[in-house]
Amino acid sequence: MASPNVLTPQAEDFPKWYQDVVAKAEMADNGPVRGTMVIRPYGYAIWERMVAEVDQRIKKTGAQNAYFPLFIPQSYLAREAEHIEGFSPELAVVTIAGGEELAEPIVVRPTSETVIGEYMAKWVQSHRDLPLLLNQWANVVRWELRPRLFLRSSEFLWQEGHTAHASAEDASSYALRIHTEVYNDFLTSILAVPTLLGIKPPSERFAGATNTMTCEGMMRDGKALQMATSHELGQNFAKAFDIVFQNDAGESAHCFTTSWGASTRMVGGLIMAHGDDNGLVVPPRLAPIQVVILPVREGDEAVDAACAQLAATLEANEVRVTLDKGRGSFGRRTTDWEIKGVPLRLEVGPRDLAEGLVTMVRRDTNEKISVALDAVAGAISHALGAMQADMLAAATARRDDRITTVSTVAEAIEASQNGFARLSWSLVTPEIEKQLKGEALTVRCLQRADGSIPLSDTEDGLTCIIAKSY
Amino acid sequence: MASPNVLTPQAEDFPKWYQDVVAKAEMADNGPVRGTMVIRPYGYAIWERMVAEVDQRIKKTGAQNAYFPLFIPQSYLAREAEHIEGFSPELAVVTIAGGEELAEPIVVRPTSETVIGEYMAKWVQSHRDLPLLLNQWANVVRWELRPRLFLRSSEFLWQEGHTAHASAEDASSYALRIHTEVYNDFLTSILAVPTLLGIKPPSERFAGATNTMTCEGMMRDGKALQMATSHELGQNFAKAFDIVFQNDAGESAHCFTTSWGASTRMVGGLIMAHGDDNGLVVPPRLAPIQVVILPVREGDEAVDAACAQLAATLEANEVRVTLDKGRGSFGRRTTDWEIKGVPLRLEVGPRDLAEGLVTMVRRDTNEKISVALDAVAGAISHALGAMQADMLAAATARRDDRITTVSTVAEAIEASQNGFARLSWSLVTPEIEKQLKGEALTVRCLQRADGSIPLSDTEDGLTCIIAKSY
Repeated sequence: MASPNVLTPQAEDFPKWYQDVVAKAEMADNGPVRGTMVIRPYGYAIWERMVAEVDQRIKKTGAQNAYFPLFIPQSYLAREAEHIEGFSPELAVVTIAGGEELAEPIVVRPTSETVIGEYMAKWVQSHRDLPLLLNQWANVVRWELRPRLFLRSSEFLWQEGHTAHASAEDASSYALRIHTEVYNDFLTSILAVPTLLGIKPPSERFAGATNTMTCEGMMRDGKALQMATSHELGQNFAKAFDIVFQNDAGESAHCFTTSWGASTRMVGGLIMAHGDDNGLVVPPRLAPIQVVILPVREGDEAVDAACAQLAATLEANEVRVTLDKGRGSFGRRTTDWEIKGVPLRLEVGPRDLAEGLVTMVRRDTNEKISVALDAVAGAISHALGAMQADMLAAATARRDDRITTVSTVAEAIEASQNGFARLSWSLVTPEIEKQLKGEALTVRCLQRADGSIPLSDTEDGLTCIIAKSY
Repeated sequence: MASPNVLTPQAEDFPKWYQDVVAKAEMADNGPVRGTMVIRPYGYAIWERMVAEVDQRIKKTGAQNAYFPLFIPQSYLAREAEHIEGFSPELAVVTIAGGEELAEPIVVRPTSETVIGEYMAKWVQSHRDLPLLLNQWANVVRWELRPRLFLRSSEFLWQEGHTAHASAEDASSYALRIHTEVYNDFLTSILAVPTLLGIKPPSERFAGATNTMTCEGMMRDGKALQMATSHELGQNFAKAFDIVFQNDAGESAHCFTTSWGASTRMVGGLIMAHGDDNGLVVPPRLAPIQVVILPVREGDEAVDAACAQLAATLEANEVRVTLDKGRGSFGRRTTDWEIKGVPLRLEVGPRDLAEGLVTMVRRDTNEKISVALDAVAGAISHALGAMQADMLAAATARRDDRITTVSTVAEAIEASQNGFARLSWSLVTPEIEKQLKGEALTVRCLQRADGSIPLSDTEDGLTCIIAKSY
């Protein structure tokens, strides 16, 4: 187990714990320019796994990947009034290029609705070109005054999907499909983070959207993190960029567009939803390293041979396995792998080995099991599956314990100091929203009474989730 | 076959043919900001396949992926004298961010040696931290006055590897390994582009390198394209960024570093190395779509059922297959798939089908073969393999036909109007290099007499390749 000095305990100072984990698990460093981030190999390997899982789900919905330029003429952003207002304070602007002052300043993309809108207008002619379903994996820049690694960085990595449809219904149902079949499925089945799905209140919508859907996760300090969002943009961008098609009747009509994104912020969510005082805990289906094989004693030939054999067996079973290089004391190495949150450790020592046994340790429960050498592959496969399911169940139980249904704003403020408050949306006027913000609280999402996603914030009987957030 | 109007013939105007292919195959468009590029879904799917193949080879050499910031303090670039001199004219500079003028301007990375150098210095302490083998997939910006899609764009996508080693020998042998096991293996076995491997003359080295290795490909107009490069940086960046380690003897020493990159430029190389007057020809191992199934007549139930069945069979055999949606005339659809260079077409018509047959057409040879329905999977597998091998053989024969060994500079100038000239390197003084540049020619690489890669430009008996280039 980690010595008490390695990480600040969560209960003592959660933000400090987060910083410690990011540094000690070698996830990321601050970049040299304010708010930028260096993603180190272990952090990037986790991101690569997220990319692979999200990308395959996006492709299943029929969207195709493409790549649009980093640089956007400043004038493009100004074409949609709410969009420019929303993003202006966060823009990075290139004014010199190729040794000369530019005639028109160039914006480094904060998001790509505008430039993609320009090209959709070229590519869409008739209803047969619709829906047009595009996605890109890219870096974006939003200048950040209070940066935090993964959670808020001036540059971050993400995917942004952009689609054009012939009708509002088609746009709406596709955005919902992305939200549930891509984001929520990934978050629950791979990241093991239970989410609350709902729509944002009008005050919290994306700049230019008519509706924003969100997946809200609860972190271990009871705060909310927005894990992914999907936006219906109505005809706002289609009108600003002239995305027009001929419908069946031969008439010209504006498309309905959507956009949706998930970013390296999910890495922060992973850390804070599952991590404990010993470090990260990575769910097996996500983990870039699912099993680490640890020789208890260095330089013992029988141990080394057994470790190599186990690694080969597990690799043949498509387990993502790493053989510890055996530098430093066994205790120190164990601590390091715990901090990195590798789901299972296989400890191989000469005494166990003489009896044909190795020890398997689960990161989430710290449970230790002796396993016969010839039963390791089966035991690992079983333990990986069990740990994945148990992590989601544990995170769901923790979350549900901290959601309090209340009937007044005062109670909501009280309850959301340490978790989520559920309140009738009818009680939350714009003035109340302001009051909540004064208490560092926001309305995270609106849901129907049964927890399903409403079509609009004006539906009757909605509840809302109020919480502190990242 | 494509009608003569679809594409400008190569013999008439090769650059115009290239532009036509890029547009008609829906590979890319010009972006709104000078020199930037929109990579359309089909072009991006080809790039994704390149990424997957190169990435797995990089990982096999032991390098790990990471991500470093887009933004670099301008002062970093200035620390290595040749580096700043080489890149200054091409930089894009951010001077405003978050609504304020910045105290120190920020450069949008043209390459990441400097920022990665800064972090290597933090991460490397002892010889046990070496070699440090990093790679990143990223966008970079080099302001381009004469942009051409994929070949020269102000923003492009690439991978850049950066490594630190304890000795010059270790750095050198790793750079060579990347050059041969990653780049050359990918280019020949996947892209089917035969290369000439060698080192750049000192005048053409990367800014700050002590040695630059290159893979030069020949395009169908006889010009050269640099497909990938690997640089030995000596201790230049290690000294500029203080990348220091303790050696076995406990003494402090500067590391030796390398960098190496391949970019979306390879997509341009693919087009120009294999394309013909009917469009792209994509080698099967690279192709995102290996087989397209084309119903000859729309709306015929038996044809539709056979097409769906064939698609399912091929998918089960892990063939990347697409079912043509059957819009427009059969001739038009055939032309479109030819332009996109899909290796094999399976044409399914009612008459053939009644006899239990379909027609398989190879894109490179236009050879048509009748295949029995129950033998399609085997025939496809065989044809894909044959086409891959034949494309490399054909490209190699075309290239070798156009390499002329000459013994004077005048002959070299003559021979390189339509291909490559091979000349003794001892004849090429700095003055001759200037003269060649006046003729729009460059020394593409230096090789040993047997075609192998020399360690240095001062070895005896070297030959050099002189050519026009992209």
